[in-house]
Amino acid sequence: VSIAILCGGLGGSRCVDALARAAGPEAITAIGNVGDDLEFLGLHISPDLDTVLYTLAGLLHEERGWGVRDETYNALALAKDLGAETWFTLGDRDIGLHLVRTAWLRNGLPLSEATRRLTEALGVGVRLLPVTDDRLRTKILTGEGELDFQEWFVARAHREAVTGVRYEGADEAVPAPGVLEAIDAAELVVVAPSNPFVSILPILAVPGVFAAVAAKRVAAISPLIGGKAFRGPLPEMLVSLGQDASSAGVAEMYSDLVDVFLVAPDDAGPPGAVTCDIDMVAPERREEVGRKLLEALL
Amino acid sequence: VSIAILCGGLGGSRCVDALARAAGPEAITAIGNVGDDLEFLGLHISPDLDTVLYTLAGLLHEERGWGVRDETYNALALAKDLGAETWFTLGDRDIGLHLVRTAWLRNGLPLSEATRRLTEALGVGVRLLPVTDDRLRTKILTGEGELDFQEWFVARAHREAVTGVRYEGADEAVPAPGVLEAIDAAELVVVAPSNPFVSILPILAVPGVFAAVAAKRVAAISPLIGGKAFRGPLPEMLVSLGQDASSAGVAEMYSDLVDVFLVAPDDAGPPGAVTCDIDMVAPERREEVGRKLLEALL
Repeated sequence: VSIAILCGGLGGSRCVDALARAAGPEAITAIGNVGDDLEFLGLHISPDLDTVLYTLAGLLHEERGWGVRDETYNALALAKDLGAETWFTLGDRDIGLHLVRTAWLRNGLPLSEATRRLTEALGVGVRLLPVTDDRLRTKILTGEGELDFQEWFVARAHREAVTGVRYEGADEAVPAPGVLEAIDAAELVVVAPSNPFVSILPILAVPGVFAAVAAKRVAAISPLIGGKAFRGPLPEMLVSLGQDASSAGVAEMYSDLVDVFLVAPDDAGPPGAVTCDIDMVAPERREEVGRKLLEALL
Repeated sequence: VSIAILCGGLGGSRCVDALARAAGPEAITAIGNVGDDLEFLGLHISPDLDTVLYTLAGLLHEERGWGVRDETYNALALAKDLGAETWFTLGDRDIGLHLVRTAWLRNGLPLSEATRRLTEALGVGVRLLPVTDDRLRTKILTGEGELDFQEWFVARAHREAVTGVRYEGADEAVPAPGVLEAIDAAELVVVAPSNPFVSILPILAVPGVFAAVAAKRVAAISPLIGGKAFRGPLPEMLVSLGQDASSAGVAEMYSDLVDVFLVAPDDAGPPGAVTCDIDMVAPERREEVGRKLLEALL
């Protein structure tokens, strides 16, 4: 089996983990979003890639859904005493990773190679590729003007209604080495249950990626169950951006790309949707759900 | 009273603290060494300035003599797991300070202004000036070749005998704003009980500083008592660099600069040395020793 997964952060990481547990990590290439990357306190941070890394390495703070478990926050506390902005919470172990990666990037290493080194050092068997090594930033248009993704999502707790989303730098971005090859070589491309606007579309916005995915058998897993996301502002975004806040609304967004759309058994999906257990929140359920997904899709 | 103090790290910081407790912090300008600065994990670190800052802010790990008390080391532990060099120990709170300062410097702030902001944020009343905002690096010549100061001092635990010391960048360095003015305005310049080779001479190597100091009444406090340093490799350096490993040996190095040389009561100093209690190791003794120093010098 060979599966390429387009994924964002939390929902994406759980889907990658589930399929890796069921099919074996060597069967999986995860293609990660970099649109929510940011520079903070001089550090390069890739929150979606980090969540995938931490999840697969068993380091994620699972209850909270971001950052590292058994974490301390002493660096940020002192930085705050010195007047630094601290709206983006960075734990100490998390900072250790950011320091190392930032130093690598400053030395000229591409993000894809930095990510490969991190997976190797953390014992992660899944191949994790940022969709691009180039700068790509998701910008959120609101009534307050255009905001950086993290500024809207974290600093303002995604309070402002979203009237548009833009992927700055996407047109000039080039897929990272291995991205198109992994899609071409895959028996199946899975669109993870991530937010389409801020996790999946920025991946597909990199020239060449959409066409490569569209040429394959593509299955998408709904990020909503009964119109609700496990976490995050997707229902509100669907409404403010003119879509239905439901699995059917998400399916419509993917209609020119996706062959199979998976929804939870008790969810009202679009016509032709395949129902499957897609609740991958609890780590101990993931292998079982991964097996069910493979049965439904392969 | 107005006193300018030339100082290195631990010995220097204790002297600054002692005189600040006795004369009031507003009476003191500390002119700090930057020859042992380094870049590590992408962070700009100024170990001598940091030791002065931490000492005066009550944050120093006093027993160890460097870094922050009540410290954790989680960032460095994760960085080590990722294969990073970790020979220079950085605690988490310490990293918080380095992150903030490094971001300021990257944004174009001079080190002197970054240091001013740190003193202000940490409630340090003493004025602390790096001797220069320019790059100045102490290089240690050994039988193994020339080494960066910290590489020799920390990574190799100053095992190799020192055959020479060089202050790279000193000739082109300019005194930081306020340095020459503080020396000119001082009633007294104090050379702290720091290692002359790696703490005091790099300060005096910045063009203009030696002449400004030499024009004043200058008192030096011996960094040795009975030929022993409180810490560090000064006796061995004196011997390998052709000096006597004693207070008299240090005094000879300063002979064309210093008007008063202070030694401990039970120490054999050079002819004309003034004896005074100079044991400033314990924080609770510093105010008293500071008063004795002021009595002896003013």
